[in-house]
Amino acid sequence: MAGDGSDQRALQYEQTLMYGRYTQELGVYAKEEAARLRESGQRRSVSDRSRTLDLLEYDKGRCAKCRICTVRCQKFLISRVGEDWIFLILLGLLMALVSWVVDFCIAICLQAQKWMYGGLDSNVFLQYLAWVTYPVVLITFSAGFTQILAPQAVGSGIPEMKTILRGVVLKEYLTFKTFVAKVIGLTCALGSGMPLGKEGPFVHIASLCAALLSKFMSLFGGIYEEPGGIGIKDIGLIGMKNESRNIEMLAAACAVGVGCCFAAPIGGVLFSIEVTSTFFAVRNYWRGFFAATFSAFIFRVLAVWNRDEETITALFKTRFRLDFPFDLQELPAFAVIGIASGFGGALFVYLNRLIVQFIRKQKAINRFLMKKRLLYPALVTLLISTLTFPPGFGQFMAGKLTQKESLVTLLDNRTWAKQGIAEDFDYIGHSQAWKHPQLNVFVTLVLFIVMKFWMSALATTIPVPCGAFMPVFVIGAAFGRLVGESMAAWFPDGIHTDGTIYPIVPGGYAVVGAAALSGAVTHTVSTAVIVFELTGQISHILPVMIAVILANAVAQSLQPSLYDSIIRIKKLPYLPELGWGHHEKYNIRVEDIMVRDVRYITLNCCYRDLHNVLLTGHLKTLALVESAESMILLGSIERAQLQSLLSQQLGRSKRLEYIRERAAAEKKHLSVVSIPGSEDGSQRASQEVRFQISTEESSFSPTRPAPQKPLKPALKRPSVVERPTEIPTSPNDNSGIALKNLFCASPDTEGLEDDGDVEDDMTIREISEWEEKQLDEQVNFNNCKIDPAPFQLVERTSLHKTHTIFSLLGLDHAYVTSIGRLIGVVSLKELRKAIEGSVTVKGVKVRPPLASFRDSGTSSSENEATELHKLWDRHKSMSLPREHTPSESDEKSQ
Amino acid sequence: MAGDGSDQRALQYEQTLMYGRYTQELGVYAKEEAARLRESGQRRSVSDRSRTLDLLEYDKGRCAKCRICTVRCQKFLISRVGEDWIFLILLGLLMALVSWVVDFCIAICLQAQKWMYGGLDSNVFLQYLAWVTYPVVLITFSAGFTQILAPQAVGSGIPEMKTILRGVVLKEYLTFKTFVAKVIGLTCALGSGMPLGKEGPFVHIASLCAALLSKFMSLFGGIYEEPGGIGIKDIGLIGMKNESRNIEMLAAACAVGVGCCFAAPIGGVLFSIEVTSTFFAVRNYWRGFFAATFSAFIFRVLAVWNRDEETITALFKTRFRLDFPFDLQELPAFAVIGIASGFGGALFVYLNRLIVQFIRKQKAINRFLMKKRLLYPALVTLLISTLTFPPGFGQFMAGKLTQKESLVTLLDNRTWAKQGIAEDFDYIGHSQAWKHPQLNVFVTLVLFIVMKFWMSALATTIPVPCGAFMPVFVIGAAFGRLVGESMAAWFPDGIHTDGTIYPIVPGGYAVVGAAALSGAVTHTVSTAVIVFELTGQISHILPVMIAVILANAVAQSLQPSLYDSIIRIKKLPYLPELGWGHHEKYNIRVEDIMVRDVRYITLNCCYRDLHNVLLTGHLKTLALVESAESMILLGSIERAQLQSLLSQQLGRSKRLEYIRERAAAEKKHLSVVSIPGSEDGSQRASQEVRFQISTEESSFSPTRPAPQKPLKPALKRPSVVERPTEIPTSPNDNSGIALKNLFCASPDTEGLEDDGDVEDDMTIREISEWEEKQLDEQVNFNNCKIDPAPFQLVERTSLHKTHTIFSLLGLDHAYVTSIGRLIGVVSLKELRKAIEGSVTVKGVKVRPPLASFRDSGTSSSENEATELHKLWDRHKSMSLPREHTPSESDEKSQ
Repeated sequence: MAGDGSDQRALQYEQTLMYGRYTQELGVYAKEEAARLRESGQRRSVSDRSRTLDLLEYDKGRCAKCRICTVRCQKFLISRVGEDWIFLILLGLLMALVSWVVDFCIAICLQAQKWMYGGLDSNVFLQYLAWVTYPVVLITFSAGFTQILAPQAVGSGIPEMKTILRGVVLKEYLTFKTFVAKVIGLTCALGSGMPLGKEGPFVHIASLCAALLSKFMSLFGGIYEEPGGIGIKDIGLIGMKNESRNIEMLAAACAVGVGCCFAAPIGGVLFSIEVTSTFFAVRNYWRGFFAATFSAFIFRVLAVWNRDEETITALFKTRFRLDFPFDLQELPAFAVIGIASGFGGALFVYLNRLIVQFIRKQKAINRFLMKKRLLYPALVTLLISTLTFPPGFGQFMAGKLTQKESLVTLLDNRTWAKQGIAEDFDYIGHSQAWKHPQLNVFVTLVLFIVMKFWMSALATTIPVPCGAFMPVFVIGAAFGRLVGESMAAWFPDGIHTDGTIYPIVPGGYAVVGAAALSGAVTHTVSTAVIVFELTGQISHILPVMIAVILANAVAQSLQPSLYDSIIRIKKLPYLPELGWGHHEKYNIRVEDIMVRDVRYITLNCCYRDLHNVLLTGHLKTLALVESAESMILLGSIERAQLQSLLSQQLGRSKRLEYIRERAAAEKKHLSVVSIPGSEDGSQRASQEVRFQISTEESSFSPTRPAPQKPLKPALKRPSVVERPTEIPTSPNDNSGIALKNLFCASPDTEGLEDDGDVEDDMTIREISEWEEKQLDEQVNFNNCKIDPAPFQLVERTSLHKTHTIFSLLGLDHAYVTSIGRLIGVVSLKELRKAIEGSVTVKGVKVRPPLASFRDSGTSSSENEATELHKLWDRHKSMSLPREHTPSESDEKSQ
Repeated sequence: MAGDGSDQRALQYEQTLMYGRYTQELGVYAKEEAARLRESGQRRSVSDRSRTLDLLEYDKGRCAKCRICTVRCQKFLISRVGEDWIFLILLGLLMALVSWVVDFCIAICLQAQKWMYGGLDSNVFLQYLAWVTYPVVLITFSAGFTQILAPQAVGSGIPEMKTILRGVVLKEYLTFKTFVAKVIGLTCALGSGMPLGKEGPFVHIASLCAALLSKFMSLFGGIYEEPGGIGIKDIGLIGMKNESRNIEMLAAACAVGVGCCFAAPIGGVLFSIEVTSTFFAVRNYWRGFFAATFSAFIFRVLAVWNRDEETITALFKTRFRLDFPFDLQELPAFAVIGIASGFGGALFVYLNRLIVQFIRKQKAINRFLMKKRLLYPALVTLLISTLTFPPGFGQFMAGKLTQKESLVTLLDNRTWAKQGIAEDFDYIGHSQAWKHPQLNVFVTLVLFIVMKFWMSALATTIPVPCGAFMPVFVIGAAFGRLVGESMAAWFPDGIHTDGTIYPIVPGGYAVVGAAALSGAVTHTVSTAVIVFELTGQISHILPVMIAVILANAVAQSLQPSLYDSIIRIKKLPYLPELGWGHHEKYNIRVEDIMVRDVRYITLNCCYRDLHNVLLTGHLKTLALVESAESMILLGSIERAQLQSLLSQQLGRSKRLEYIRERAAAEKKHLSVVSIPGSEDGSQRASQEVRFQISTEESSFSPTRPAPQKPLKPALKRPSVVERPTEIPTSPNDNSGIALKNLFCASPDTEGLEDDGDVEDDMTIREISEWEEKQLDEQVNFNNCKIDPAPFQLVERTSLHKTHTIFSLLGLDHAYVTSIGRLIGVVSLKELRKAIEGSVTVKGVKVRPPLASFRDSGTSSSENEATELHKLWDRHKSMSLPREHTPSESDEKSQ
């Protein structure tokens, strides 16, 4: 290296030092935390050891030895196998148990309804009453219970998980209360027999489990010290290792949720990736697979142990023939199912959103329903259960079958149309429900599809924990069955011409339809895999794949996915996807959307500035710049850090120190009561006047007598208790003390312990003065944790680039710099606005059928002429190597 | 907004302007390019239209109308359906055809060998000769052909694709030559019957297809204008849209490669993601699925059309019973298969690397083999085919079966041990090969596994296009079969106790073993999915998943994956993965690994500096800083941009302009030949002297008479031709002209056209002088494309963070800045060194069995005491809130 190179380096290091120890990064903080944890862990392990010793002393039998052995084994296991594994195994186990118990309870609930309905067959009215009251009570209970315990438990949970995995903290969504509300609410909701699903809620429940489990495991010290793998979140502003680990674990949990719900580990992993992630770290793949497999395994083993099954098999096992699953010439029919499902899926999402928006818009209804929150669920349940009442309309749509029973019958490998259901189908029993004496099986199927379609769309708007996957899946299966039965009726001996006769298998069509419709609603391809795992057969892989891809192509060009739709309805802070191939995006730059009025603090600011900045803004982090003139970005500081800086400066311990010093100084210079002192006094007096004016302008509480003595003798000691009782009673007091209380957790109690030798004898007035003086001091950032690498963009970064960086790194804001100078800040909010201004996923407009993915958005953005649009057009009309005149930029920033 | 805010803004804009139009980004360039393309496209479409009109005129029959219709349909399709779709469909179609044709040719080759072997059954020696010569000839041809045509075609191709998808450009790997070499080489290699696979090469072939297809489609104008989706690459330094689109298409192509090789679309997508990606953009998921599904579909349809199959089914269809696939109590046996496969997989990777390293190290062998490149393949083939000769040792290891036949027999659903193969197995025929009159079927299986194991490891080192997946898959199946047969012999009536007897299905074990071993070798979980799709049955999902996960756990803790191993052997520029959970990584910072001696240019530099920088370094991009003192990073400029700047400055057109100006000036001031002129002259003379000294020190060619007249009369006109003939003959001439020629493509020819009115009458000397003057001018960056947002890191960024950012964004270098000041640069190379210095993936050391993923690396890093390690230890031993003293940093940078 050249000599001047090393000089330069030395210079740089001096500069670094000049700026203080601002580089003490979050990483270091994390390490300190870890060290602290480890220490406490060691302490705990010592106590563990002493406990085991105690055990040995008290009860020298074999039992204690066993216990010690167990403890040691546990330690060994943890050190060898790694905590990730243990965590994932525990999570899998727990979720399998939860899933199984929920399923068991739901089955009991449904049986109870059937039993009541069956027992009352003498009187149709009583029967109806029982049929209707039971679900109404259950749903109302579920709605009320979740409303009271944790309103966050309402709905699917996948949109929320998507948002959380994006990096946005929605803390209340991962509490124990929510867990309880979700599990119990879900059990009741599904036990009512409404067309609701358990998949979405299970994703949420699994995430809850993971969050609670990690909290629980962190109690056992040392567990969460090790970083494991660090995910995306690490890069951005949150450098804490736990955070990223939690995100990884949550991603695995989502896979577990789907996996243990359907006993579909592979499909679970893929579905959860498709539904929740934008960018996926392949190295975290195994976590999901491991946990989901374990969970699915335990879930099915429980069924075996409960003697429900003989061995581990698929949940909805099909028995299609293996040698000739379908003919090549049947493929057009499968493609038709796919395309129709695409339209159907889009329609479902649209219908679901329409219902929510209708209820919201109708203010009269809304106001009424807001008052009686439980009325809406009850009314909807009443309507739906009335329509499915088996002796009533239900007889035309197989109303007496539960969701699971319908699915089993729909996937049956025999043909209904040809054989006529009633004859040899008695041994299953359920299939008979599809057969009506007067009606054709086709009519029953059509009625079933139409009724269930709107019922499901309506039922999923009920504020209970519920998903939409399973109802949609069943509707898809029914649609597939319909097509399959039609094909079977059309070609009674199959299409295949040479040699053996291979009749058409309508069950295969049902499988294809189920995958296609659920894929269209959720915008996923992995429903194909779920279907294979659910049915235990992969023979229809190509038809299923073709149908799912076609359905996705159609649905994605028409509507957002159900989860994105809910995100929009709930206005969750999620970054929408950019549409496929919008050139225009390249013309919006960060400078067009950034907020130019950035809150910042300078390196040489005084505490007063800090105080003002903290008062005015509510951002979580603040930019630290070199000076207001240079605006060179040095890093970002968390709000909490600044608050603690301020509290240290104004804290009681500091004041006591000041008193001590003053006392010492007075003692020393008691004889020298000369000119400098009075000068000091006059200075202070002038300051005081200014201060008084400012406080009198505001609502300074006049009841308290303001002591006028500028220099209080050290000998006079008022009661220490006096101040703390006074301060909280004067919220209007805008002197420093109240403000200090605003920011500091409890700075006064700290000082009381160690500074017992000096007593606080300052009056309110003196304290205010002292605080004013303190506020004018320059901030010492030495012990402050500063993130030296906040994410920066340059002003010319395109919107598309910004979007990709934000979603890749999971940022929630980024500073915009120009040649090292801070000129703005972009947060998720601005980005979302910019994107939504251009890509409307409104979706009311149905664009030309089969418009490919990449067309979506361009035509729908016409009617929403936002500010950005105009901007855009101007950008487009400008000649390409555009010049940047200040006037234009001014105009833009208006 | 506050008033001072807008002032500030104005100031910032002024600053931006001050720095010139350096912000004309690559994006703008791309747009210009796109506009140009579009224009030419329109021109072409106009000509299209005129051509169709011509057609109408010339031949007014139905045919022409049809053609027009076709053209219009095509246009409509392209505009409606989107080009991505068309591209993916074409790719799928093409690859399916290639795959089918290759399979067909391989089958013919293998049949020919069998036919030869069968025809010569009278003489064993002749039989042996035929058996051995055939593969030796084929392999030698394959090796020679690829060696001559495209050496890049050798090997699997997955490591290279992994590197390319990481963002490193390996251009020669995606040429038409490579395609031809790979396809023909692969066909011959596999036709020889060696234990080689086609999966890896097919990933490469599909990528080649995609690259060639995109080139081909771009010929049809307008196709590659639209950006489609923009991938990861967009973020980094390469702002070009095509680049990212190509990366996306290559990723889809990898999926197609696996998909059409095994007719496994889902497994193909997952496998290609696991094997090639680090971070995966979920929005690109559908591309892979779509193309792979289409490809798999066509591939199987071709088989149906060729009457090989009756309908579309799986490639290696199994017929296991559906109702009771396996008993719960068999799971330990499956787990054993998984764990053993893990060790086996690691051993395979180790063995493969050992062979390569052994051959490389033995210099004598190496020198010999380098001379006779084709000897090694021939020798290896001779050895392997000798050992598999059926009447010889081959009889003990089912030597006469091809790979495909072995797999079919291994997946058979009957039990060999119990039934005794020979009896009712004749109708398949192949299974009989496993039965030896003297030997037990277990011995045959063990021999098969052991022999095939080292044979496959050896065969994959032959320099022909070949993969290792299929051989490993077959070995795994054999191992599974061995365990399965043992279980069947141990429990003749199955384990299940109550009710019906369910005998054990050894074929199921074979499936599990195949998935586990191939998963262990490739470090993927998706082999499970591939297995389901290959066999067409998913009933063994849980055993397969459990075994694959266990195998991965073991193998990943012992060895890198086969592909990573090859990447290390071939020293490809790929960023290795960080191990699981190495805390120590957090202690290495970017400042410890960065290169401090950055090549940069300053905003106010002169052309001479530019020139020097270009001469000394070979980086593709250079940093632009404000000044050498401030070092504030303004952006980065591509080398090519600087070269064109320099060539403009020294170009002929500029010189001619100078001559013209000089002539004009001389005409004007002809009378005023006074003091200023002489001053100028003296200045120039002094410069000249300096120049002459410097040139005489170097090897200035003395043969040419250096003209001494400082002011040459404008009237004297030497021949223009003189100079161009002279210059290229003096390569030692280090005057500006030669240097200029070094950098500029052909700057002289440009000037000749438009400046015909002025003739170049300068002598070499004058030109040198003029160039010297030109070089002293300040660089005008106005028309230069500058990337204003090169990726920046701060010096305290941890290695882990850096690694994640590099892999997420696909960077190949990043500048390290401290408070806006450039202090270093980190490239992939440094990062790789830093990681390899800490995480050795050497893998010779076998760590304690079943060490979990996260332990890998920590224990193996002991013996490699690199500079970084010491650093590390010091870091660790330091107290946590570490201080940064300049002395320490100096020490570090040594």
